Amino acid sequence: MHVTLEEAQKAIAAAIDKAAELGTCMDIAVVDSGANLKAFIRMDDAWVGSIDIAFKKAKTACFFAMPTGQIGKLSQPGGPLYGIEHSNEGLITFPGGLPIVNTDGILIGAIGVSGSTVEHDHLVAKAGAEAIGLADLPVHPWRT
Amino acid sequence: MHVTLEEAQKAIAAAIDKAAELGTCMDIAVVDSGANLKAFIRMDDAWVGSIDIAFKKAKTACFFAMPTGQIGKLSQPGGPLYGIEHSNEGLITFPGGLPIVNTDGILIGAIGVSGSTVEHDHLVAKAGAEAIGLADLPVHPWRT
Amino acid sequence: MHVTLEEAQKAIAAAIDKAAELGTCMDIAVVDSGANLKAFIRMDDAWVGSIDIAFKKAKTACFFAMPTGQIGKLSQPGGPLYGIEHSNEGLITFPGGLPIVNTDGILIGAIGVSGSTVEHDHLVAKAGAEAIGLADLPVHPWRT
Amino acid sequence: MHVTLEEAQKAIAAAIDKAAELGTCMDIAVVDSGANLKAFIRMDDAWVGSIDIAFKKAKTACFFAMPTGQIGKLSQPGGPLYGIEHSNEGLITFPGGLPIVNTDGILIGAIGVSGSTVEHDHLVAKAGAEAIGLADLPVHPWRT
Repeated sequence: MHVTLEEAQKAIAAAIDKAAELGTCMDIAVVDSGANLKAFIRMDDAWVGSIDIAFKKAKTACFFAMPTGQIGKLSQPGGPLYGIEHSNEGLITFPGGLPIVNTDGILIGAIGVSGSTVEHDHLVAKAGAEAIGLADLPVHPWRT
Repeated sequence: MHVTLEEAQKAIAAAIDKAAELGTCMDIAVVDSGANLKAFIRMDDAWVGSIDIAFKKAKTACFFAMPTGQIGKLSQPGGPLYGIEHSNEGLITFPGGLPIVNTDGILIGAIGVSGSTVEHDHLVAKAGAEAIGLADLPVHPWRT
Repeated sequence: MHVTLEEAQKAIAAAIDKAAELGTCMDIAVVDSGANLKAFIRMDDAWVGSIDIAFKKAKTACFFAMPTGQIGKLSQPGGPLYGIEHSNEGLITFPGGLPIVNTDGILIGAIGVSGSTVEHDHLVAKAGAEAIGLADLPVHPWRT
Repeated sequence: MHVTLEEAQKAIAAAIDKAAELGTCMDIAVVDSGANLKAFIRMDDAWVGSIDIAFKKAKTACFFAMPTGQIGKLSQPGGPLYGIEHSNEGLITFPGGLPIVNTDGILIGAIGVSGSTVEHDHLVAKAGAEAIGLADLPVHPWRT
């Protein structure tokens, strides 16, 4: 099951609103449950280098069905997943990527945001995900 | 000079309308004049394989400031640009990618469309480009 | 708005002078505001491995409109941007890359230098950037 | 034995003169005998997509010590080298790349030019190569 274009656009609109509220310029990517790009926008003046980071955050969140920051805690030197960023043609494991789960607990996609501090990136991703999905993830959301 | 988000969204909306009118499902990418992604959408049921093609068409049109199909005529076996697709981490040289030039004749970006026949792809790209730029390209549109 | 060839050559000439003054051999890259290569030189006896580093430093500085070393402080283990180097087909986040901003505060490109210590790399990049742009960056330099 | 920076700059200056004489805007790359970039410039208004093509032409000419167009004649469908462009992370096999051979018949590098018709590209590359090397290649120029 995949996020629809209407849902993706709704998530992006909510994320843009949050980004503006925070006074930031963001790159925002939404992928479906196959981690394939569904929609993307780069706000005016947002970093060009954040295009790929936003996409990789969405991909990472989708691939492991968890927030990117959660993986980052495990991938530090000495941690159990040290170096995981080298897989899958590049992962981004700091905050700003969130799975999107529907009300049946099914993973339908993910959102990735980049362009400010990781705290802001996370808040904007959360606003986007919540506009179309659950705020709280089930223990193991998965896809059909 | 670069396409703004508002312009990119206007181009994509016009392209979606055209795609719907033709009864097709399209992937639509808009890049700025540096060929960096500005906005993208994948219509529901559109090919996943067309994500990259739409982007590469936009990139190709921007990189050479001409319609992708024009390059494709020169890159056939025996043609002067045979094999050009191997450059720039992959070009797409069949129709569906168009430069976007503003009313001052300046290249501000490009649009790439993939998801149907190349004739349809081209029509949808044209509808998108015309919504925010010139329909007819100057001889050598270029960027500032 | 993009750095011109004349400006890029002026920046490289100033950077070569500085490199010679420091008794170093450098690779020096200048990109435009789309992070596309505008000019490059490798001084005789400079490291071949620094070709790509010089380019990636220029790209990184352009993509995030800040000195590369500033990003490197945030991307250390435990830092908020740990692992950012995996994005954008490889970033370089140690010193030696600087945005080039014109007197209107507009980002027109970036310079990347590699071939010696990072302190020397930074000094040479600074000499190049200052030859054609501002020495001090505005808070949020950006491109039109 | 490798082209020096002074030689590379001399070749590029001669190539720029020829490009201007022809009324064209070119991307010009010079590599050493290891096919590693020595110097590059992109003239104002030259295609961004030609950056990589100019480099790949220089690399191709160096890797096989022959003009790129000569390889292209052999890589057509049905030809003995069909598909060779897939090797070496991408070759360009149409005209515009030439080996640079010194007066001892030793390959010291190569030049690649892209930005206009292949006929113009070739003429500009030839002007660059002749400024520092032999016009006529020995049967099998090779490097030390």
